[in-house]
Amino acid sequence: MTSANSSLSLISPDLPPAPPSNATPAKIGVLASGNGSNFEALIQAIADGQIRAEIPIVIYNNPDAAVAARAQRWGIPAVLLDHRQYQSREAFDFDVVQALVQAGSEWIVMAGWMRRVTDVLIDRFPKRAINIHPSLLPSFPGIRAIDRALAAGVKITGCTVHFVTLEVDAGPILMQSAVPILAGDTSETLHARVQVQEHAILPRAVRLAIGQ
Amino acid sequence: MTSANSSLSLISPDLPPAPPSNATPAKIGVLASGNGSNFEALIQAIADGQIRAEIPIVIYNNPDAAVAARAQRWGIPAVLLDHRQYQSREAFDFDVVQALVQAGSEWIVMAGWMRRVTDVLIDRFPKRAINIHPSLLPSFPGIRAIDRALAAGVKITGCTVHFVTLEVDAGPILMQSAVPILAGDTSETLHARVQVQEHAILPRAVRLAIGQ
Repeated sequence: MTSANSSLSLISPDLPPAPPSNATPAKIGVLASGNGSNFEALIQAIADGQIRAEIPIVIYNNPDAAVAARAQRWGIPAVLLDHRQYQSREAFDFDVVQALVQAGSEWIVMAGWMRRVTDVLIDRFPKRAINIHPSLLPSFPGIRAIDRALAAGVKITGCTVHFVTLEVDAGPILMQSAVPILAGDTSETLHARVQVQEHAILPRAVRLAIGQ
Repeated sequence: MTSANSSLSLISPDLPPAPPSNATPAKIGVLASGNGSNFEALIQAIADGQIRAEIPIVIYNNPDAAVAARAQRWGIPAVLLDHRQYQSREAFDFDVVQALVQAGSEWIVMAGWMRRVTDVLIDRFPKRAINIHPSLLPSFPGIRAIDRALAAGVKITGCTVHFVTLEVDAGPILMQSAVPILAGDTSETLHARVQVQEHAILPRAVRLAIGQ
């Protein structure tokens, strides 16, 4: 009865090169907790000249996060800050901010950063911290967004890039992409399709945010 | 940087005729509070043979609802039940149910029915009451969904057809369509684009619900 496409994306297939400029490249520190595929989408867009930026540091908080090896392959310093070594979220964020600032970061991209942030981080990077979340916010903020969308029986989900505020997944939205949930979708198949859209919108949203 | 289409619809442009059957047409009572354009989309789909159904009655609750004139043009009895004449939601729903049943309704479609329903109605039409709502639920349930989506700054909204339960706009979802919010959109322009999708998915979702 319906013909379903694999994506409902608003996103044009190609991101053209960033316009030429004499301005110095934006310096974007990346925070990641896991696989790091969104980090890879971002650094690839930079390598392809689609964003005029540098990633001076990747900070990760799980010793076995695959993002560390990805950063290494790109020659980017990867710094482990293990939140379990800290007494408070604020103390952890203090060291995160210090590492970001020492590396020269002007912007933060949270590419799968599974930590609540505090005003220690927000106040140092006001409107300069960007997060990507695997739902069409305001639906399904917080953890396990894809599984919760599946369980809720929605027919369309997606992903959202937004500025980070103290309230989890509630900051001003930069960009969204819709992804249909298909008959027979599992957590894995849906996650894979949402990730394709994440990798498409994250570089575009970052470019929009930094004004290129 | 992005190329935005006017719709992200999953919906195929044409709804083929309902398959032939000897079964009697489904009888669908319609509840509407306002303009009645969703009623018109439904009766048009029936007239075009896309749904094998009849609409034996349209109930409206505002004396000046334009849906009454629309029903008249289609030769369908339109019955005014003014909720302001009732002491309780239950007493109102009792008369709504009585009018629906007397007209032979087996299903209910709420095509812009701006009333909370009670178990008086739900219990008489279990899993046979269908509502259409102008957002991608679970985002923006309740009133003024389109204005609230605009105010929230989301980039994608849409509409949802779902079964009615006691919790407002929270029943099982039958069908959804996504609608991008474009730069310069006003309440009026966005409402118009969402309505196009409402008119597309309501007949399809009704057909899905009644099993044709």
